[in-house]
Amino acid sequence: MKKVLAMLPLVLLSVTGQALAAGAEPTVKDAIQAVDALWVIVAFALVFLMQAGFALLEAGATRMKNAGHIAGKNVLSFGITTLVFWAIGFAITFGSGNSFMGSSGWFLNVADEQVNEVFASLAWTDTPLAAKFLFQVVFAGVSLAIFWGGIAERSKLIVYFVFGAIFIALIYPIVGHWIWGGGWLAAHGKQDFAGSTVVHLTGATAALVGAMLLGPRIGKYNKDGSVNVIPGHNMVYSVLGVIILWFGWFGFNAGSTMAANGTFFPYVALTTNLAAAAGAVAALLTVWAVLGKPDISYMLNGVLAALVAITASCAFVKPWAAVVIGAVAGILMVFSYLFFDRVVKVDDPVGAFSVHGVAGIWGTLSTGFFAAPDLVEKLGVGKPGLFYGGGFHQLGVQAMGVASVFAFVFIASFIVLYLLKVTVGIRISREEEIIGLDVSEHGTSGYPEQLPNGGTYTKAEAL
Amino acid sequence: MKKVLAMLPLVLLSVTGQALAAGAEPTVKDAIQAVDALWVIVAFALVFLMQAGFALLEAGATRMKNAGHIAGKNVLSFGITTLVFWAIGFAITFGSGNSFMGSSGWFLNVADEQVNEVFASLAWTDTPLAAKFLFQVVFAGVSLAIFWGGIAERSKLIVYFVFGAIFIALIYPIVGHWIWGGGWLAAHGKQDFAGSTVVHLTGATAALVGAMLLGPRIGKYNKDGSVNVIPGHNMVYSVLGVIILWFGWFGFNAGSTMAANGTFFPYVALTTNLAAAAGAVAALLTVWAVLGKPDISYMLNGVLAALVAITASCAFVKPWAAVVIGAVAGILMVFSYLFFDRVVKVDDPVGAFSVHGVAGIWGTLSTGFFAAPDLVEKLGVGKPGLFYGGGFHQLGVQAMGVASVFAFVFIASFIVLYLLKVTVGIRISREEEIIGLDVSEHGTSGYPEQLPNGGTYTKAEAL
Amino acid sequence: MKKVLAMLPLVLLSVTGQALAAGAEPTVKDAIQAVDALWVIVAFALVFLMQAGFALLEAGATRMKNAGHIAGKNVLSFGITTLVFWAIGFAITFGSGNSFMGSSGWFLNVADEQVNEVFASLAWTDTPLAAKFLFQVVFAGVSLAIFWGGIAERSKLIVYFVFGAIFIALIYPIVGHWIWGGGWLAAHGKQDFAGSTVVHLTGATAALVGAMLLGPRIGKYNKDGSVNVIPGHNMVYSVLGVIILWFGWFGFNAGSTMAANGTFFPYVALTTNLAAAAGAVAALLTVWAVLGKPDISYMLNGVLAALVAITASCAFVKPWAAVVIGAVAGILMVFSYLFFDRVVKVDDPVGAFSVHGVAGIWGTLSTGFFAAPDLVEKLGVGKPGLFYGGGFHQLGVQAMGVASVFAFVFIASFIVLYLLKVTVGIRISREEEIIGLDVSEHGTSGYPEQLPNGGTYTKAEAL
Repeated sequence: MKKVLAMLPLVLLSVTGQALAAGAEPTVKDAIQAVDALWVIVAFALVFLMQAGFALLEAGATRMKNAGHIAGKNVLSFGITTLVFWAIGFAITFGSGNSFMGSSGWFLNVADEQVNEVFASLAWTDTPLAAKFLFQVVFAGVSLAIFWGGIAERSKLIVYFVFGAIFIALIYPIVGHWIWGGGWLAAHGKQDFAGSTVVHLTGATAALVGAMLLGPRIGKYNKDGSVNVIPGHNMVYSVLGVIILWFGWFGFNAGSTMAANGTFFPYVALTTNLAAAAGAVAALLTVWAVLGKPDISYMLNGVLAALVAITASCAFVKPWAAVVIGAVAGILMVFSYLFFDRVVKVDDPVGAFSVHGVAGIWGTLSTGFFAAPDLVEKLGVGKPGLFYGGGFHQLGVQAMGVASVFAFVFIASFIVLYLLKVTVGIRISREEEIIGLDVSEHGTSGYPEQLPNGGTYTKAEAL
Repeated sequence: MKKVLAMLPLVLLSVTGQALAAGAEPTVKDAIQAVDALWVIVAFALVFLMQAGFALLEAGATRMKNAGHIAGKNVLSFGITTLVFWAIGFAITFGSGNSFMGSSGWFLNVADEQVNEVFASLAWTDTPLAAKFLFQVVFAGVSLAIFWGGIAERSKLIVYFVFGAIFIALIYPIVGHWIWGGGWLAAHGKQDFAGSTVVHLTGATAALVGAMLLGPRIGKYNKDGSVNVIPGHNMVYSVLGVIILWFGWFGFNAGSTMAANGTFFPYVALTTNLAAAAGAVAALLTVWAVLGKPDISYMLNGVLAALVAITASCAFVKPWAAVVIGAVAGILMVFSYLFFDRVVKVDDPVGAFSVHGVAGIWGTLSTGFFAAPDLVEKLGVGKPGLFYGGGFHQLGVQAMGVASVFAFVFIASFIVLYLLKVTVGIRISREEEIIGLDVSEHGTSGYPEQLPNGGTYTKAEAL
Repeated sequence: MKKVLAMLPLVLLSVTGQALAAGAEPTVKDAIQAVDALWVIVAFALVFLMQAGFALLEAGATRMKNAGHIAGKNVLSFGITTLVFWAIGFAITFGSGNSFMGSSGWFLNVADEQVNEVFASLAWTDTPLAAKFLFQVVFAGVSLAIFWGGIAERSKLIVYFVFGAIFIALIYPIVGHWIWGGGWLAAHGKQDFAGSTVVHLTGATAALVGAMLLGPRIGKYNKDGSVNVIPGHNMVYSVLGVIILWFGWFGFNAGSTMAANGTFFPYVALTTNLAAAAGAVAALLTVWAVLGKPDISYMLNGVLAALVAITASCAFVKPWAAVVIGAVAGILMVFSYLFFDRVVKVDDPVGAFSVHGVAGIWGTLSTGFFAAPDLVEKLGVGKPGLFYGGGFHQLGVQAMGVASVFAFVFIASFIVLYLLKVTVGIRISREEEIIGLDVSEHGTSGYPEQLPNGGTYTKAEAL
């Protein structure tokens, strides 16, 4: 071998494959910009990892026979999200247009010197365009991941492609434009710092529509009106999923400052963490009191509900208010979940609408109560809340935002999913559902040694 | 739908929900502060994720029937930690007070201009108060997570609430104050860079007390004095847990610099990584030699023991010394685990005292041997170690620190847990333990499809 | 207790265990250096976490009876990597020497003022030496992790120690020196931004050699020439593994800028993400068309193949080209996997050569087609690609790089593994393989409650 190697040309050189051309002498502003950009990229990566959180949370909360599908579709979903949001969605959300939607900047195809004109609604942060896009594409991905929760264990794969693409191309971007893209709700001073409404309520409303149009899973509701609990198959996955989501949320909320200078971004992380902690404890105690057992899955959903709620308000409220907002979200989620599951009888397998919708609404309204004057002034968005003598003004703006987003997403999702339902169909066959999506849709069990042929008929399903 | 939308007020606006008011012209100092704060927040997030590491490590190392409880209690635990440390613990650890404990700064309720006075012991870093708090609250959470290891699979849920709250309000903060909060051990030049003593020995000592007061799990020790191995149910979880902990430890140790400028924080990450690597290899070879098989769970604990040991010394020692410290920790852990499990017969299910206590003591003492003069001078804490001609002085200080912390935590934990034992009780009933905590305490199996009714009587347990 | 405590010396002091000596007044350059170093350390941590990704991906894609071994050996592997790369590998890769290999800087034992002389090939980045080493050691660890995929489920543990050490000490470093360490391929303007060749093709070529020399797993190929699919046991692990790898790849590629100032590092993250997304969708559609089912494991490998391909080119190509490169990688991987598995009949359990080798070759060649003139000029490495009128020059350089690295690694790995085979042996016995590595090699099942005695004879294995 040595002989072969000896024949290789031996040339000394210092240029490396990783070399970068040196720039001009940097200024303080360059340094600050670099810190800000670094924070945005780190936050983007944290929010990206939330896809793993959703995959685990959802796979853990559903059955073994669907586990490969449930987890794997998050990868597909984020693939579609990236391509469609790059081509279309980002331009509609942040591109210049009218107050309903943006209409410029397709494919990020914008000359450097025109970025702040084409994406004027993002000109307030001087981070590079690629960083802005990456941070936003993972938000869109979270909103879509929430939707999948509502339609879990019974949807055709085509829904993931078609509805996923439309949601990311149009539905999410239009809501985003209204509130973050310089649209009509922004004009009213709507407060939604990191997206209780834009991201969570949007995804959750679509999930509610999906769950309604699909109908309940086989065996969920009995003919006599009684309700079966269909427990998830792996609580460890769900716990890991929730811790990863909590971790990612520090990027989600504190990253939305788009800046790492000053004292603000750690402050947002602080309110976020306090709310989540309060949500965990409040939900556990509530379910203990209501159902007689400290059910862990409710505690996990309590953490998420609290995080959803503090998402709008994290930058506007004091630490004590964050604790209150998180605790109320955790309590609300328990009652909301039981109400939809047992009274309304919508089969929402992971409680997507209660966790992201109801808590999203509460969180959005909460700034109307708790927004502190000094923080509102600092942010320059809207007015202080009711409890600080701000009157009902901001509460009204927040309520208008919630109502209009809910109505728009509900109607838009309904139209798309209804058209899909009456054309290609959105629900798998009874037989496929009983076998499980892993074997019936994908051809391989997610647990081939434990469940070689997919699921088996259970008593409830055989009814 | 279009008609409805056309009626919406179309208003153009550039203010966004994420906008931040611009500040004054930034200086170089602002830029450095921003980098430092960003590093602390990133490090905080890494250490936060260690909760997932502990949840997986512990769930993997215990039985299926308890898996939901074991994993889920980490979420509850961190919820309690956040609320109690915010209200009380942080003030006792870092608030100004006397040399035994701090007594100011409750609820972080401090005016901006008084922060460096109230939390004088943290005035050496100019990161924002919220960042200081967040970085410290995750350390407290790690210490408490270590405690849970010792009492796994047989404790009542009430212990998690009551002991958890007291540990975070008082026990951990008092130790923290002694060493990091300007207390009496700090005055003696105690070296404990990131908490081999403060975090690890404290949690591990409480775990030892808990394991002793609870007694062994059913089936662990036979009447004839022989010992049963109760293997954990999922080695993949444990591996993932350990890699996540190793990952988080870069935040734990290198983040404790609280600064990203200069060459110091990567240096700390380097010694940390070298020690962990040496611990993995040394523990695997040791257990191979001692038990005849390269048992993976010992290797995993070897990584953790090495990380625990280098935690105190990472900033004080040279790379070669880091390798030695890590390797010795990995070897020590194997013998310590076998000693406590088979000779002393304390049933410590995940080896918490060997991994975090014995290695914590070794790591704390190790600076007394290996602390290098140039690094000691740079840090300005204590004196060089014995091997650099520093004599026995620093070794004595380190030993005094270890002894006093062990004694304090042992006594304090004993009093609290003993009072709990004789009042509400700390151990679940025999029947509940056999069924498993998931079904008996929480009402739902962690693996409903594989273990629908919780655990079953095994031969050992039925004895 | 209080009495005891009262006797403790009460001394007030503000020095803390975490204090750092203050330095001189910082400059803008210091601030930029701090941001760059912070980004490199964050990126290092992300790449480190890829070990968890590989552990999960591989454990999920193999059988229950080997799961503890498969996951656990990544911890051992990274332990060995750290120690050997610190002692030897880093010096051979980046130390000054000749154009074939470096030969200085053993054990990082270099005086501060000589770092840029000894490691001249890394002088282009002003990050601290510890950061440079940490970022590179995790790259070496990834390359070795790829190798393990090819030899999964049938190798002796001794291979992990001996081949692992030689690979990290010599094989990987020599390739790294050629391209990144100022060696002869660097002199030719070889473009390999983050290591499609250096990291991925190197590991994958070794994996191919290992798979060939070991022969197929029992039961993989039948006597009549037909092929059995041996499905992995847990698709959720594999999904989680791939999302973690995707997450880590933002550090891998964008971290290779070694700088967080300017717009370049987010740009690299953008092309990386676009390629991965395209790979997911393209591979899923391809396997759907070819095999008739949208098999999730192919989609997951499609993501990885795309990430491997964009690794070389991420800094040289436009976003649209990233999408093309990723999609082609995803498609190629499907056909390559089927070709090697069913035609060539090399049993490569996780498709290491198709995912990292074939896609690594494609990615390396892709800059020869797609390298954009403005980016090539900025980076100062090589020439623009064929599609930009750059002619065949760069394509030729890239092909020469691929061919020489493949040949070198193939021959070197073959010699080492063949010598091991004829001396100590590289394959476990038939009985051990049937029982599974967890019980036979490590003495404990990875799933003691589900698989107490390791695996059992299956029909295919008993043939």
